[in-house]
Amino acid sequence: MKKIMGKQTVRFANPPTVLAAASIVGPKEGEGPLSEYFDQIAPDITFGTDSWEKAESQLVSDTIQLAVQKAKLRMDDIGFILAGDLLNQSSGSNYGIRACERPFFGLYGACSAIGEGMALGAMLLDGGFAQYVLANASSHYCGAEKTFRFPLELGTQRTPTASWTVTGDGAVVLAAQGNGPFVTAVTAGSIVDMGVTDASNMGAAMAPAAAAVITAHLRDRNLNADYFDAIVTGDLGQVGADLLMALLREEKIDIAKQYDDCGLLIYDREKQDVHAGGSGCGCAAVTFASYLLPQLQTKKINRLLFIPTGALHNVASIQQGETIPAIAHAIAIENRVPASDPPSSTKGAQS
Amino acid sequence: MKKIMGKQTVRFANPPTVLAAASIVGPKEGEGPLSEYFDQIAPDITFGTDSWEKAESQLVSDTIQLAVQKAKLRMDDIGFILAGDLLNQSSGSNYGIRACERPFFGLYGACSAIGEGMALGAMLLDGGFAQYVLANASSHYCGAEKTFRFPLELGTQRTPTASWTVTGDGAVVLAAQGNGPFVTAVTAGSIVDMGVTDASNMGAAMAPAAAAVITAHLRDRNLNADYFDAIVTGDLGQVGADLLMALLREEKIDIAKQYDDCGLLIYDREKQDVHAGGSGCGCAAVTFASYLLPQLQTKKINRLLFIPTGALHNVASIQQGETIPAIAHAIAIENRVPASDPPSSTKGAQS
Repeated sequence: MKKIMGKQTVRFANPPTVLAAASIVGPKEGEGPLSEYFDQIAPDITFGTDSWEKAESQLVSDTIQLAVQKAKLRMDDIGFILAGDLLNQSSGSNYGIRACERPFFGLYGACSAIGEGMALGAMLLDGGFAQYVLANASSHYCGAEKTFRFPLELGTQRTPTASWTVTGDGAVVLAAQGNGPFVTAVTAGSIVDMGVTDASNMGAAMAPAAAAVITAHLRDRNLNADYFDAIVTGDLGQVGADLLMALLREEKIDIAKQYDDCGLLIYDREKQDVHAGGSGCGCAAVTFASYLLPQLQTKKINRLLFIPTGALHNVASIQQGETIPAIAHAIAIENRVPASDPPSSTKGAQS
Repeated sequence: MKKIMGKQTVRFANPPTVLAAASIVGPKEGEGPLSEYFDQIAPDITFGTDSWEKAESQLVSDTIQLAVQKAKLRMDDIGFILAGDLLNQSSGSNYGIRACERPFFGLYGACSAIGEGMALGAMLLDGGFAQYVLANASSHYCGAEKTFRFPLELGTQRTPTASWTVTGDGAVVLAAQGNGPFVTAVTAGSIVDMGVTDASNMGAAMAPAAAAVITAHLRDRNLNADYFDAIVTGDLGQVGADLLMALLREEKIDIAKQYDDCGLLIYDREKQDVHAGGSGCGCAAVTFASYLLPQLQTKKINRLLFIPTGALHNVASIQQGETIPAIAHAIAIENRVPASDPPSSTKGAQS
């Protein structure tokens, strides 16, 4: 079976199963609309530690352990851990995963990390290099503010386009063999930079990357958007979500019926003062682990296109007048593996 | 063919070929012992830009273009780019790769990045997900000092165990089909932390991770160290290299005859005032691209075990009293693919 579809998409000879996932979040997320779906809601944003960085690593460690347990595996069963976060040099992952003693590939894809990990992990499984992999992504509101913005103690006013970094970790265990839901196809995104310079408007920076990868996924598989019951981006928030739909309409793609964004699902924007919505590596990861995956498992939806999105700037690049590069990866997760070979329009294979 | 060997190592049904590699370095590296091997030596550490961060991104961009050209490919031929660097949020890679418009997976493995990229890239190729992948790693002395240590303007005294971050980028193009040298097996490392807290002694922090992954590679493939003509670590420097050999002797593994370290190869420690040796993501990457790969291609060596090493701390973690987690990945690159199935001692397969 040819695994390369069209210009940018891959599919699997033996589509990996999403075996289990775990989510642990902070108190604010626990007060939001997804409250009942999370595995654990921490009573305290410190997670029992004395720094925001240690808090995030504790969160990473706890969530990974829980995911392995929910998958009814031992840590030793995990062939590779793939993980990313937002802290400098990905320290949330590095310290949180230190005790796991499993082969580790650290990722940096900003808030697209869970998508990057699931995409790579699915390819490693289908390639025959492991029986199980674990993809993980975390973020912590206070750590992200300290890393990217202002000390919290300043009480800086946030702009209406700003989003609120989710305190949370989502860990996903993929298996080479299983009964689904299956990762059936993946479109890895390239970096898209449309010139946005406002680091408080990451939705606008990321929407074009999401539009590009959704368009590529549908084109390469020769599908209409209606094929999917749900098309869910990572953390575009309201500004980015509106932009995404406008950009896709220009490509004659209408996703209004089945579209949502994890950044809009995770908080109540009316009551929780989060401005444009949720963001951070944890946003897509915990929403997938707690809410989207169970919807697939209970057949409330059968075909999900999951598109974690990331803004690839840092403090220095913004200070130096650079624009914000963005990326998004599209992961198709379906309860049934599509049977047929790709139709003729997708024959323009990646060379 | 079973691809999982022993507990931690994978081999390939169709071992990928290292098709080409490119290296561009700064002036100091150009004055060192590998001077004649680099593709380009920049006359000026700014690479024509007005900041250290932009300099690194320019270096990334130039080296990737050159590697694709040396491989006689077009950028469009590259299925995936996998890249990492040391700057916060991997901005060297993100901005340097922005113009490539190819599917991108950002990595964070500190100075092990080129090993992480080659390991993942080889698995993506053997899995059938691309015809060509490009692995890239970069570092810049001034950017790394700014990110991890002191402003250069302070003229801070360096300790004898400190290493000198290489200004350089190495880009490696791997191909699914080719005539070798072949990536024949990969051992992905897990995080090892033996409690070192001195961020000016990364060699000591990383040596145990290198020892663990070399031991695992030999054990899983049931090989003696003598199997390899050359065993070369990434950037342990003199302190770490001595420690590595001592640690391996405890495991009854003697690598003295065929061992070297990119951090010792790249500078003349007597004349270049680099203290323990070279370090940085670029250290292993440019030494492999410029010096080690041509040795394989010209059959001066036929079996290389390449072990890029990374220290996974950041500024905040050291300030908060944390120890330094480290990682290393072992990549076997051989001119002939070993024919036989793994012998019986490696049957304890990863579950």
